[in-house]
Amino acid sequence: MNHYPEAIVKLIHSLSTLPGIGKKTAERLALHILHAPDHEAASLAADIIELKKSVRLCASCFALTDRETCQICSNPGRDKGVICVVENPADMAAIEKSGAFSGLYHILGGALSPIDGIGPGDIRLAELFRRTRGNDVRELILATRTNVEGEATAAYIRSKLTLTKIKITRIASGIPMGGDLQYVDPLTMQKAMEKRYGI
Amino acid sequence: MNHYPEAIVKLIHSLSTLPGIGKKTAERLALHILHAPDHEAASLAADIIELKKSVRLCASCFALTDRETCQICSNPGRDKGVICVVENPADMAAIEKSGAFSGLYHILGGALSPIDGIGPGDIRLAELFRRTRGNDVRELILATRTNVEGEATAAYIRSKLTLTKIKITRIASGIPMGGDLQYVDPLTMQKAMEKRYGI
Ligand SMILES: [Zn+2]
Ligand SMILES: [Zn+2]
Repeated sequence: MNHYPEAIVKLIHSLSTLPGIGKKTAERLALHILHAPDHEAASLAADIIELKKSVRLCASCFALTDRETCQICSNPGRDKGVICVVENPADMAAIEKSGAFSGLYHILGGALSPIDGIGPGDIRLAELFRRTRGNDVRELILATRTNVEGEATAAYIRSKLTLTKIKITRIASGIPMGGDLQYVDPLTMQKAMEKRYGI
Repeated sequence: MNHYPEAIVKLIHSLSTLPGIGKKTAERLALHILHAPDHEAASLAADIIELKKSVRLCASCFALTDRETCQICSNPGRDKGVICVVENPADMAAIEKSGAFSGLYHILGGALSPIDGIGPGDIRLAELFRRTRGNDVRELILATRTNVEGEATAAYIRSKLTLTKIKITRIASGIPMGGDLQYVDPLTMQKAMEKRYGI
């Protein structure tokens, strides 16, 4: 890379530490930024700084927010009786995009994974159980992922809430709507067959 | 996207203006930056600013540099008798990576394209012809791309230098037709340089 000036090499290096950005892509992006108008590059840099400065976690659900309590938790139109438990903000974003849910969230910040040394104390389970002890909650939807860790996390939460009157549900798994069956992985297919229902 | 705080939405937007970065990738990158250590995000932002501030064009070959004359032009070990003509800095970088060339470059900053209104006055042809009038130059390797515009540019340069004693060669095909030089692997590039022929 030493045929490029130092500043380009440095930016290529910084960009290639981002997930899914290889050397080639980083090089292409750096050259694009170099040729972009100054104000565009400046605003990209400023946006990165602003992001780190202003974003924090909601005190209630741990969603990303720029306020003490997030927009969803502080929205009087949301149903405070239903909490959807997800592993991380991107999963929450995917559910919000679907428009299929109008309750609140609880972001665990991960899933149980003994092999990676992630136990119940390492994700926001205590905070979740504290929330379930409030009077308002009628239902807890466990929307952790459908892999080993996500299933284990859902099972753990279920096992810790045997005495509760709260209805505990698991988000359904199966074949994506409109998706080609040939691209469905075998495990999803097994689940879809197993969960087949009469119509 | 309004389930994300404003600062995240803004960065996702800025990132998705980059070439090849869709909304999904931009979202993934923004969340990664959010969770990265502060100093990493700060250095990414600083690298973007520094790039725009420090990089300029070599006064001789128009390569990207942070000096008046680039590292290659000012390297006494390079053969000043051979000039390799390329369309842009990424193509030059691809040739440098191959290690197959030890002369100087000339970066045109594009290729002739009547359909896009790019004529001889819009790329650095006058500067190239001025360089060929020096006494040192023995060979001009035309390494413009192998698409219509690149071939037209090579043909135009050839046509303007009929009276010169300089040997004019074209980089060998062997590089994929119509392909971007920057995506050519080093071995193919070595072959293409080695097989260059007079035109
Ligand atoms: Zn919240
Ligand atoms: Zn130079």
